[in-house]
Amino acid sequence: MAGVNFSKGLEGVIAAESAICRIDGVEGRLYYRGYSIEDLAARSTFEEVTYLLLYDALPKADGLAAFSRRMRRSRDIPPPIRDMIRSFPPRAHPMELLQSVIAYLGGYIEHVIEHSPMCNCRDTLHQVSQLASVVATYWRFRQGLDYVPPREDLSHGANFLHMLHGEEPDPEDGAIMDACLTLHAEHGFNASTFTARVVASTLSTCYCSISSAIGSLYGSLHGGANERVMAMLEEIGDSSRAESYIDGALAHAEKVMGMGHRVYKATDPRAIIIERSLERLVERKGERRIYDILKECERVMAERMRAAGKPVYPNVDFYSGAVYHLLGIPRSLFTPIFAMARVSGWLAHILEQRADNRLYRPRSLYSGPEPRPYVPIEKR
Amino acid sequence: MAGVNFSKGLEGVIAAESAICRIDGVEGRLYYRGYSIEDLAARSTFEEVTYLLLYDALPKADGLAAFSRRMRRSRDIPPPIRDMIRSFPPRAHPMELLQSVIAYLGGYIEHVIEHSPMCNCRDTLHQVSQLASVVATYWRFRQGLDYVPPREDLSHGANFLHMLHGEEPDPEDGAIMDACLTLHAEHGFNASTFTARVVASTLSTCYCSISSAIGSLYGSLHGGANERVMAMLEEIGDSSRAESYIDGALAHAEKVMGMGHRVYKATDPRAIIIERSLERLVERKGERRIYDILKECERVMAERMRAAGKPVYPNVDFYSGAVYHLLGIPRSLFTPIFAMARVSGWLAHILEQRADNRLYRPRSLYSGPEPRPYVPIEKR
Repeated sequence: MAGVNFSKGLEGVIAAESAICRIDGVEGRLYYRGYSIEDLAARSTFEEVTYLLLYDALPKADGLAAFSRRMRRSRDIPPPIRDMIRSFPPRAHPMELLQSVIAYLGGYIEHVIEHSPMCNCRDTLHQVSQLASVVATYWRFRQGLDYVPPREDLSHGANFLHMLHGEEPDPEDGAIMDACLTLHAEHGFNASTFTARVVASTLSTCYCSISSAIGSLYGSLHGGANERVMAMLEEIGDSSRAESYIDGALAHAEKVMGMGHRVYKATDPRAIIIERSLERLVERKGERRIYDILKECERVMAERMRAAGKPVYPNVDFYSGAVYHLLGIPRSLFTPIFAMARVSGWLAHILEQRADNRLYRPRSLYSGPEPRPYVPIEKR
Repeated sequence: MAGVNFSKGLEGVIAAESAICRIDGVEGRLYYRGYSIEDLAARSTFEEVTYLLLYDALPKADGLAAFSRRMRRSRDIPPPIRDMIRSFPPRAHPMELLQSVIAYLGGYIEHVIEHSPMCNCRDTLHQVSQLASVVATYWRFRQGLDYVPPREDLSHGANFLHMLHGEEPDPEDGAIMDACLTLHAEHGFNASTFTARVVASTLSTCYCSISSAIGSLYGSLHGGANERVMAMLEEIGDSSRAESYIDGALAHAEKVMGMGHRVYKATDPRAIIIERSLERLVERKGERRIYDILKECERVMAERMRAAGKPVYPNVDFYSGAVYHLLGIPRSLFTPIFAMARVSGWLAHILEQRADNRLYRPRSLYSGPEPRPYVPIEKR
């Protein structure tokens, strides 16, 4: 429309103030509530990070114990939800199932959802706990395996691996899973977090808001990058073929997955952390093939892009798929695991939105036809 | 944050161009694709209006016949979905169920959902058809009644009443139901439609986008106004008590539900249309009580507000609850029926968003703590 400017996709438009996440793209730094992602990944747990995101403070020992207990007791999946998972059509995507189950759980759990700024969702934590259980159970049912009841003595990440594989994971595997969830727990106003806030701004429940955010994360422009990195690695197959693959992609101006990031102009700080986990995992499992392809892709990309004067760095997705692969996690669960992690951030944003709420209701510019007369069907 | 301006709730911010709906709040006019709501409510059907919203043209006879056939053949609910509805906890809200079922259906139906701008959702219409079936079936199961299979020879509105009540509705009742759905099918960029577009902008499926929009409509600041009008009418109980009720509400500065509209400064054009339906329905059914309370509330409100120099008019929600009540529809289905109608508009917006897509990704202003050192738990 002539003479009226607006920004498509709300690019550059400020939608809200937020005290949850700080991203310094120039320096390659990420903070949750002021704490660096390096500290949190190395020294904290996913449960503590969830507490931090929701309460804006690190818990004391007894506060963390009570919080963990609530989370761990919420892990079990009610039988009707198990039936939903079992009946879910095999060709469908687990993100559709997750979106569905979380909305359903909002009605299922035995507490009152208050339509108010002070919703009691912070006290229930079913959304956070059960997302992981649903993802693991979905995969087991797909494989014709039984439901594995959760264990309260395991961390969130370790319990997920337990419910997925049906055996207690190596403690280091559990710790790496937990750290991966921490790395993905929060990252500012992306489309899924914005969706969660828009829905929360109507004073819908936190379950419905999180369900909607899952629908958003499912989109191919949003979640799913690490799934595509893994597909690329499997296509390359061996490190000896990485150079020709990358050169081929660059020659055809195809995107090399896992490289560069809209926000980070320096290295993605999460990439550095997760690469260290990957190295340890490769060492311990003695499985080098995928890692060698990754490193060769990275080397070739760095050389080519430096030569072109456009340096580019691997992002967190470049490594996370390989980590999950070595933890025995199938590729179709990568985006659901993203949701399992990000749910803590979504919940923090939902609470922040409600604490100082204004319904999201932007305008649109009408660009359609002028009023026209209705024509009866026999005269069309 | 000092020195930086932004608009909370994106108020006044243009988020996109749109050719679907034109609202003239000053003159009290509403057009879908250029056709006046008066023409559409009186001369069209909900199926034709859905076609119009999706294709930006009134169909010829054979086009409408093919479209109606597709919609009508999609009405049946697969058995696993019936189980989900049956197992849904009695205290939960049907909007949670709807959000869940629509996401689940995306996986269940037997066609491929393409993650592309040209998703095939326009050809399936399950989302539109089955929403009505799910709402009706939810209520029947809640009453301990059986599933009523859909009938292909009935209009969308008439089939809904058939599946709800288990008997063929009076043709006039069916026509009124259809007209009510038409009146609510589209209304520009409210929070639920905006939610649908944000989710669609990630290239998530139309099912996931609609599921998310349902989550948004569920919020008490968005859907549900006619439910609250009906609650008010039941609280008043008799027209003789309307005057003292309204005066009491005004004296305590309480909101009188169904009065005034953010967009319409003149009368809401849908209110005029639906009041005529209500009058005919009252005449035919011989049930005057609710209508008399309504008219008395309207008279008192008009007098008081005129005296205060702030004229106010009833909106569509003021009458629609009473219409549904006379059609034998329980109050808890009013917001789900809103979703049943608005799904056509959501789908039109999803397709429009995809046709010229940009991922929604606004910015936020960081207002949280400066970087702080991690403190081990024993030292907190």
